[in-house]
Amino acid sequence: MLIQKSSGEFVQFSLEKLRESVMRAGASGPVALRVANEVARHVVDGMTTKQLHEYVRAELSRDNVCVACRYSLREGLERLGPSGFQFEAYVAALLAATGYQAKLPEEYMGACVMHEVDVEAQKGGRRAAIEAKFRNNHRDHVRLKDILVAYARFLDLRDGAAQGKCPKFDEVWVVTNGQFSDRAMTYAGCKDMKLVGWNYPKGAGLEQMIDRAALYPVTVIHGLTTAELDGLAQANMMLCQDLAQQEPEDLAGRIDVALSRAEELIRLAGEIVEPMLASA
Amino acid sequence: MLIQKSSGEFVQFSLEKLRESVMRAGASGPVALRVANEVARHVVDGMTTKQLHEYVRAELSRDNVCVACRYSLREGLERLGPSGFQFEAYVAALLAATGYQAKLPEEYMGACVMHEVDVEAQKGGRRAAIEAKFRNNHRDHVRLKDILVAYARFLDLRDGAAQGKCPKFDEVWVVTNGQFSDRAMTYAGCKDMKLVGWNYPKGAGLEQMIDRAALYPVTVIHGLTTAELDGLAQANMMLCQDLAQQEPEDLAGRIDVALSRAEELIRLAGEIVEPMLASA
Repeated sequence: MLIQKSSGEFVQFSLEKLRESVMRAGASGPVALRVANEVARHVVDGMTTKQLHEYVRAELSRDNVCVACRYSLREGLERLGPSGFQFEAYVAALLAATGYQAKLPEEYMGACVMHEVDVEAQKGGRRAAIEAKFRNNHRDHVRLKDILVAYARFLDLRDGAAQGKCPKFDEVWVVTNGQFSDRAMTYAGCKDMKLVGWNYPKGAGLEQMIDRAALYPVTVIHGLTTAELDGLAQANMMLCQDLAQQEPEDLAGRIDVALSRAEELIRLAGEIVEPMLASA
Repeated sequence: MLIQKSSGEFVQFSLEKLRESVMRAGASGPVALRVANEVARHVVDGMTTKQLHEYVRAELSRDNVCVACRYSLREGLERLGPSGFQFEAYVAALLAATGYQAKLPEEYMGACVMHEVDVEAQKGGRRAAIEAKFRNNHRDHVRLKDILVAYARFLDLRDGAAQGKCPKFDEVWVVTNGQFSDRAMTYAGCKDMKLVGWNYPKGAGLEQMIDRAALYPVTVIHGLTTAELDGLAQANMMLCQDLAQQEPEDLAGRIDVALSRAEELIRLAGEIVEPMLASA
């Protein structure tokens, strides 16, 4: 049975791979096996991975709505738009949760002009200037141009620091929920820039960073409205684990929702992070 | 009487300024005076410069369709799109007509990756890498990001040349039919890059380069179709002065139009450039 990937490529359907991906999303072994078997009954030749994911999501929802949420991490990241601000806030939260001191957009004077640094991260005495490139579709690429911009900006900041105009940045990163073009990766490697994207670097990409410490964005919560997302971003609550720890009354006030909705959001966020943290 | 400029700013209507602008477009003194007087009768408070230009164009058309064409240079440049290829071809033609050896897009290996150079120009032993930024609207800006890209590309080509991977580029330019943002201008000045845009640098911008040697793009010809423009760009005939020198039979074959249309295009192109060249 052939399945069509989002790239257009066809791969053989594998029950085992499907079961593993469901387990990675936090389902127990027996649940994953049941779901995979159930979904396998619907697989037809030429089906797309997207359709397959829909079936998995639907099956998972019968057991636990939030295993389904985690399974949709990629789509959750795509909802961190379209302005890009929520993605920046999420990247900052992700870094803060992994031991960095992270700051949101700030303007710094370089040698020639002022530059906006999307996210600034410090750890172990090193300071990184991070460009956050949000993509509406995870298949969209961050291209060489974007990397050239980040590098030229970094050079001007570096020269600015030598002139005492701004703090010294030691590293430049580009982080995206999308992919990088080949030229972008080659150039960045050549210039010693750090790139983090969907499954890039292999085995240490954005989704692995997220899975490893259950740092799910609030956008994996099914049915979260744009207004609620906006409110959470303004309140700097971009991670399910932050949201799960809020007091309902406090949350209702800060993001302007009814108390019952605040309670529901906190419960949903908790269901997403708890099994992952317990198994970590 | 106040006129609203495209920037939103209001300026006092001046018959004298209007007369001068019509003369600059190639109308004789008496024609310019007649047109300016005629247009002045329609001026009302709060009218936009765009509306004023429409009146001028209509009035000029009564005398000589091609003074009207020249008067619409800015709109003509805006028709050099939307793909950007025609604008690159036009910039190359403009440079070739002013003593440069100019080449269209070519890929060069830099120190890290391959780069496309939109237009390459040589004169007096110096080689410039030129980024051509077409804008659909002349009021649109070329921003700092685009200039950072051009500069980082230039650095990689410079490093590539030092490693013998590509020819040595001595200069980097960005040419646009639009405007530059303040930060773009500041950065470029600081890095010794050359910027050419609409009325930038003051008194030596794109329109002055064009006016000075009557290097009008074929797009100032009223009624030129997209297919004709495409054909002219492919045949490297982006200037009215080149088009004016063609043989009708030859032109008809090269851009695939009827002989009568080829004759008409050659005649129109001639009417645009001849008075200007005679007065130069």
